[in-house]
Amino acid sequence: MNTSTLIAPPALVRRAEQQDTQAIQALDSAHYMHPFTDHADLATRGSRVITHADNIYVWDSEGKKILDAMSGLWCVNAGYGRKELADAAYQQMMTLPFYNSFFQTTNVPAVRLAAKLTSLAPKVGDRSFTHVFFGSSGSESNDTNVRMARRYWDLLGQPQRKVIISRENAYHGSTMAGASLGGMSGMHAQGDLPIPNITHIGQPHYWENALPGESRADFGIRAARWLEEKILEIGPEKVAAFIGEPVQGAGGVIIPPETYWPEIQRIVDKYGILLIADEVICAFGRLGHWFAYEQFGIRPDLITFAKGVTSGYIPLGGVMVGNRVAEVLIGQGGEFNHGYTYSGHPVACAVALANLELMEREGLVDQVRTDTGPYLAQQFGALKDHPLVGEAETCGFVAGLVLVKDKEQRTMFDPDLSVGMICRRHCFGNGLVMRAVGDRMIIAPPLVMTRAQIDEMVGLIRQCLDATLAELRTKGLLA
Amino acid sequence: MNTSTLIAPPALVRRAEQQDTQAIQALDSAHYMHPFTDHADLATRGSRVITHADNIYVWDSEGKKILDAMSGLWCVNAGYGRKELADAAYQQMMTLPFYNSFFQTTNVPAVRLAAKLTSLAPKVGDRSFTHVFFGSSGSESNDTNVRMARRYWDLLGQPQRKVIISRENAYHGSTMAGASLGGMSGMHAQGDLPIPNITHIGQPHYWENALPGESRADFGIRAARWLEEKILEIGPEKVAAFIGEPVQGAGGVIIPPETYWPEIQRIVDKYGILLIADEVICAFGRLGHWFAYEQFGIRPDLITFAKGVTSGYIPLGGVMVGNRVAEVLIGQGGEFNHGYTYSGHPVACAVALANLELMEREGLVDQVRTDTGPYLAQQFGALKDHPLVGEAETCGFVAGLVLVKDKEQRTMFDPDLSVGMICRRHCFGNGLVMRAVGDRMIIAPPLVMTRAQIDEMVGLIRQCLDATLAELRTKGLLA
Ligand SMILES: Cc1ncc(COP(=O)(O)O)c(C=O)c1O
Ligand SMILES: Cc1ncc(COP(=O)(O)O)c(C=O)c1O
Repeated sequence: MNTSTLIAPPALVRRAEQQDTQAIQALDSAHYMHPFTDHADLATRGSRVITHADNIYVWDSEGKKILDAMSGLWCVNAGYGRKELADAAYQQMMTLPFYNSFFQTTNVPAVRLAAKLTSLAPKVGDRSFTHVFFGSSGSESNDTNVRMARRYWDLLGQPQRKVIISRENAYHGSTMAGASLGGMSGMHAQGDLPIPNITHIGQPHYWENALPGESRADFGIRAARWLEEKILEIGPEKVAAFIGEPVQGAGGVIIPPETYWPEIQRIVDKYGILLIADEVICAFGRLGHWFAYEQFGIRPDLITFAKGVTSGYIPLGGVMVGNRVAEVLIGQGGEFNHGYTYSGHPVACAVALANLELMEREGLVDQVRTDTGPYLAQQFGALKDHPLVGEAETCGFVAGLVLVKDKEQRTMFDPDLSVGMICRRHCFGNGLVMRAVGDRMIIAPPLVMTRAQIDEMVGLIRQCLDATLAELRTKGLLA
Repeated sequence: MNTSTLIAPPALVRRAEQQDTQAIQALDSAHYMHPFTDHADLATRGSRVITHADNIYVWDSEGKKILDAMSGLWCVNAGYGRKELADAAYQQMMTLPFYNSFFQTTNVPAVRLAAKLTSLAPKVGDRSFTHVFFGSSGSESNDTNVRMARRYWDLLGQPQRKVIISRENAYHGSTMAGASLGGMSGMHAQGDLPIPNITHIGQPHYWENALPGESRADFGIRAARWLEEKILEIGPEKVAAFIGEPVQGAGGVIIPPETYWPEIQRIVDKYGILLIADEVICAFGRLGHWFAYEQFGIRPDLITFAKGVTSGYIPLGGVMVGNRVAEVLIGQGGEFNHGYTYSGHPVACAVALANLELMEREGLVDQVRTDTGPYLAQQFGALKDHPLVGEAETCGFVAGLVLVKDKEQRTMFDPDLSVGMICRRHCFGNGLVMRAVGDRMIIAPPLVMTRAQIDEMVGLIRQCLDATLAELRTKGLLA
């Protein structure tokens, strides 16, 4: 491989890389430390080299075409290969590739994006989103939330309100604060986490946590009340905020009962604590709305966003700041001593604007809500008839199914068998990206996916389930 | 303003924006929460709208041309308007705009950039940099450092080694961990910081902290020994790492005495603790080397980078992982439960590669070390003859001068007078960006700056110092 591959047109890049899989794998193993990876293990297999992409498909360096049902990683809402976004990046890099917003300066794309985002977030009652704070990732933006929530209470003369309540099996990022907010015990075990004044309650996971015979509705209320119990245990005067993903994503696409969020809202209102909705996955059409709070009957004070805002084409994240917080921070705040070099990065903001405009023009959000989302619900839901599938649920364009040993008895496989990983291997083999979270198989396809492509995807999923079933049968691992 | 301004060619964008300063300022104030800003104050003035840029100059929406002696914010090492970088972004967005590296997949630009970066970091003794971990900012990368350093000691069976020692007036970012590592008391006061097991020693600031008559060399040794005192106070068996910027940037361009870093290296070696060099500002030619450790006689185990790696054209940061840490994390680590969605972002990595290749082709790093850096030292150093200037120092392409009330007596101005801010206002008025840190005026120009442009810049600085002097005289604020 030589440097000319970098500036050659795409067709050439592809050919050059196809010849070079082993060379790239060797360099990869020698120098690139991947996120969340066991490298000794990876070195024995070699990485799969993803070289190019279009629409809902990616190709690897061997020329294999793969249907990407995970949108990169819940990112590529507008699909791959969108020239409008590349044009926006090019144009802005040639005009103003960077300038900071620290010292009373600003740039046009950051301002326009802030205005655009606030216009996409509907008012609920007396709550609206007036301001936007930018970072470059979901993690950074959750750090912003922690600092902002505590600063809010300081300014209101209640500095003892420091505790942020989150949930087990939540994912909020990988900074020290992000991983602390998250409820992943494997992350807490590395790096002396969680940091102080962050605590967790149970998750609204009906399949795992409902009592025998308990209805979804009853379970939703019961799970929400864990928040009230925790607030009372800590002392309401010490609680700053509650944070939650409207639908837990990385935890395995856990769709809460409909009763859950309204009860959470009642509780945060009762004790006056801030509500932070982490919509890094859920916003920008993923659930059929620009922001997910619309559909869950909640009025968050702060919203974390990232991923879909640029369809992942360029790093950008941020916080939608509701009027309740903005009035205090801006109205009486003095300087909020917080910010990132790339807060309001002009190129990132220009690409986000182009992405949102493209999504509006093509009506992708409405399409998911009214057409392809319901169709996915129907087609993906039908997988419940498969002998391996215990439940199969969707919410907009996220979906999850659980692999079970025995459908009737709801018995799970021994976790040591890693049945999810077996299934995932069959997915790759069959040209499909699905993600395994334990024995839950999850998807979040690009929003541009058509009905015909949904059929194609669900067909592939069925094929992979069959292959997994066959392997388990051969190995004598079924009930 | 309408959406057509976004996709119009640059010339049109500029004209449209010039007509719209007030409209943009109004939107800015209504919706965009800036980093590190007092918004009530900002609203009364209105933001300066930076619209376009070329080489070392930026323009505002009123058409004013400004020499940007701060490179955006220590970022734009290759200068503005570099088509090679815009081309790389465009090309990669059309080829593969995003893919994750979590699940045993990789992409070519991330691999090539990791390999390139390790090749730019020279071996010192038995230490080399074998691996690179990517994030999107300096802050995120310092969170990675904290998690990595603690994980390293865990794996070596010394989990009690948790404490990270940093310095007062250090800047390491704005996440909860970044702000904790930093030594800015204003940041610690907001958000319940620092987090546990992070502590600070004094900074090697000769002007402020040397004893009367103490030589730079003696002060350097004394300041380094504060680290040894702190290690002994805590107990060496509890200390994980020491982190420092080779030259403190945001703290005011504090250039340590030459004796400082070698003594630090002796101390970390003696107690076996990890050395983390935060080179977010100092790397990529800023001090005349690809990495700054080369010139300070140190062998860091981890290096934080960001900013200059892409010349700020796209968010990217990361950690250079030395062989000492890599061997443990990779060799015996199992999974390191850490990573960001945008770790190894293909577009960010492609732009970084184009940037490094451009810098190599144009010899910018050598130019700063052997030609323009020494010339800047001479021309900027000559400002010491100005009645307001107590000292004026450079190191490569960073420089700082201190405004004093009385040169002979080394008396400073009353901080409440904000003399630095007065000077900064004159800079903007005279078409120059300099940054004020208290009464230190600092610069970090694009590395493409020529000798003639250095003359132009130093001429402007002198003009601004004269204007500041005149204002202080008129107000009767001098000695
Ligand atoms: C809900 C949620 N919050 C935060 C994050 C962290 O975002 P990032 O990886 O960009 O830091 C993620 C990432 O998947 C997420 O799903
Ligand atoms: C030395 C140093 N470390 C870390 C950071 C934080 O980088 P970022 O603002 O990209 O998070 C900075 C930013 O100026 C810095 O100067």
